[in-house]
Amino acid sequence: MKVDGTWRRAIEPGSDGRSVVVLDQTRLPYDVAWVRIASLEDAAAAIRDMTIRGAPLIGATAAYGVALAVAAGHPLEAACSVLAATRPTAINLRWALGEMQAQLAPVAPADLPAAAFALAARICDDEVARCEAIGHHGVAVIRAAAERARGPVNVLTHCNAGWLATVDWGTALAPVYRAHEEGLAVHVWVDETRPRNQGLLTAWELAQHGIPHTVIADNAGGHLLQRGQVDVCIVGTDRTTRTGEVCNKIGTYLKALAAHAAGVPFYVAAPSPSIDWTIADGGDIPIEERSGDEVRFISGRGERGAITRVEVVPVTTQVANPAFDVTPAHLVTGIITERGTATPAGLAMLFADRSGTLAR
Amino acid sequence: MKVDGTWRRAIEPGSDGRSVVVLDQTRLPYDVAWVRIASLEDAAAAIRDMTIRGAPLIGATAAYGVALAVAAGHPLEAACSVLAATRPTAINLRWALGEMQAQLAPVAPADLPAAAFALAARICDDEVARCEAIGHHGVAVIRAAAERARGPVNVLTHCNAGWLATVDWGTALAPVYRAHEEGLAVHVWVDETRPRNQGLLTAWELAQHGIPHTVIADNAGGHLLQRGQVDVCIVGTDRTTRTGEVCNKIGTYLKALAAHAAGVPFYVAAPSPSIDWTIADGGDIPIEERSGDEVRFISGRGERGAITRVEVVPVTTQVANPAFDVTPAHLVTGIITERGTATPAGLAMLFADRSGTLAR
Repeated sequence: MKVDGTWRRAIEPGSDGRSVVVLDQTRLPYDVAWVRIASLEDAAAAIRDMTIRGAPLIGATAAYGVALAVAAGHPLEAACSVLAATRPTAINLRWALGEMQAQLAPVAPADLPAAAFALAARICDDEVARCEAIGHHGVAVIRAAAERARGPVNVLTHCNAGWLATVDWGTALAPVYRAHEEGLAVHVWVDETRPRNQGLLTAWELAQHGIPHTVIADNAGGHLLQRGQVDVCIVGTDRTTRTGEVCNKIGTYLKALAAHAAGVPFYVAAPSPSIDWTIADGGDIPIEERSGDEVRFISGRGERGAITRVEVVPVTTQVANPAFDVTPAHLVTGIITERGTATPAGLAMLFADRSGTLAR
Repeated sequence: MKVDGTWRRAIEPGSDGRSVVVLDQTRLPYDVAWVRIASLEDAAAAIRDMTIRGAPLIGATAAYGVALAVAAGHPLEAACSVLAATRPTAINLRWALGEMQAQLAPVAPADLPAAAFALAARICDDEVARCEAIGHHGVAVIRAAAERARGPVNVLTHCNAGWLATVDWGTALAPVYRAHEEGLAVHVWVDETRPRNQGLLTAWELAQHGIPHTVIADNAGGHLLQRGQVDVCIVGTDRTTRTGEVCNKIGTYLKALAAHAAGVPFYVAAPSPSIDWTIADGGDIPIEERSGDEVRFISGRGERGAITRVEVVPVTTQVANPAFDVTPAHLVTGIITERGTATPAGLAMLFADRSGTLAR
């Protein structure tokens, strides 16, 4: 998607053939800075510290992390272990590492680096294709909302499930970009998404494409839904069970409850690698508890223009910071995948070839 | 309640007899600063700029504002108009101004200043008595939760409805303080309450009294409720209709939905001046839209210790900032008043002497 008018991906191979570059998401929206990832350690740190985030992009970055590791002579399995330990919730991480391990295991040592880079590149390309397909299928829900709405379609989204969270296009935002390209009038309510404020990434993305949007405190969405100011909710997911229970950024569940109460459709954009066919109960998904410092400190532009960190909750105050929550299937109108849109109950059927085998 | 071990009220008469002092809530929790209010303009500004906030304290401050105005020779009615225009949602403001106007209208001009100060003082004392009674009645819901809970009772609250929001004791926190005094083990989940972060006022208050608490992002409450980590929710209100629809700080509605879904009781602490007997439908309550700068900018302690303001949402980004929402009566377990606890449907009966007359 566009960065200052130029088409880019959130992760790109470096020109030296021995690294990748990613957009540093901790510095957006103030600085557009690309950082180089040249080793297994770089990749693990980028995922852990959230230089990059978003379930699909975590998977893509991990794939390149494996490639960089084997190119440096690290054993394949050890590299996968290091990367698997970076973050617990997004299933895409495990999926991408599983793909790398399965497909590279039979490759001769001499061919391993080249094969690993090629496979990582293919994982990225496949990710883009899935997101593009989600845009294609998902635009139908915006089109349907446009028929009911009197003005622009008001979409509410939580966190960032745009191209910054994937490789290109995004998941939840892919239908929005597609609608915009098709000339449908869209306005996006962007949840700030405390404590990491990923809503600002969404606002930045949308601004780059000229799509109207309004940032709101996470608290505001219930009121807007209740007052008829939202036509459709679309969010991403870090892991969706085979029964359609949706684990996503903390706070998603509250918006699903409010959408349900208001009779507003609530959609989840889920590329298949974010579906965990081995789990039926969302309660079995490990919920990452992140550092309380994410709540305590916040960065922004200081009075002299420099990025400044301030302490908003005194360090002596106890803080809890669960990073994800689970939305039960009955609150989800539909799950938009690269194969089309399914109800939670119909998800396993849409992927009968995978869910049947793995869920046994 | 306690400030560094000394018992204070959130608003106190100045030693000169011609002013009041209030705790500057925009500087907490970092600075404990008392500011002097010596004129109608000071009082109006303190309410508008949220130097003081909280529905009951807004009413008390407005009462003193009237006293300062008439002492300076301003006409009673004009002073009330200026103060009534400061904030639209909290009904206590209108209630306190109505009391001042009704009771001072027959007073001879020469006696007006003394009568006005005496009445403002009585409004404050009555407020304290109501809050103390809410603590007395409300502790029963914590005691009931203690019988079900295995450890300390986990109370979830939103915004600040403690003594800083009133004059003393608080509304939602009065039962918590009472429980703590009675030796019941309590732990409070404190919603940060974006965009103004009044949760930090709650955390500061609780810390002054040694009551265990944990600050969470507003997004986290749904997850905690779903996972059984909350035993009871208690919040305040800026205006409750005679049918028990509850207008309170933006985000309250989302927590009420989640409490209902989890089968956790959801109580509202409402001193009678916060009940609007003239309104049945919460949709008729004016919802204040505050400046987007409250979302855009945030203050905290900078790296050198000084309070620093940073821009977290670029000023070029569109922002919306509705300050309150309405929780429908069916999500409210009970309304704790100075006369006892009623269901939303039973509220008018509990105040038959007032609801009957005024609602006609």
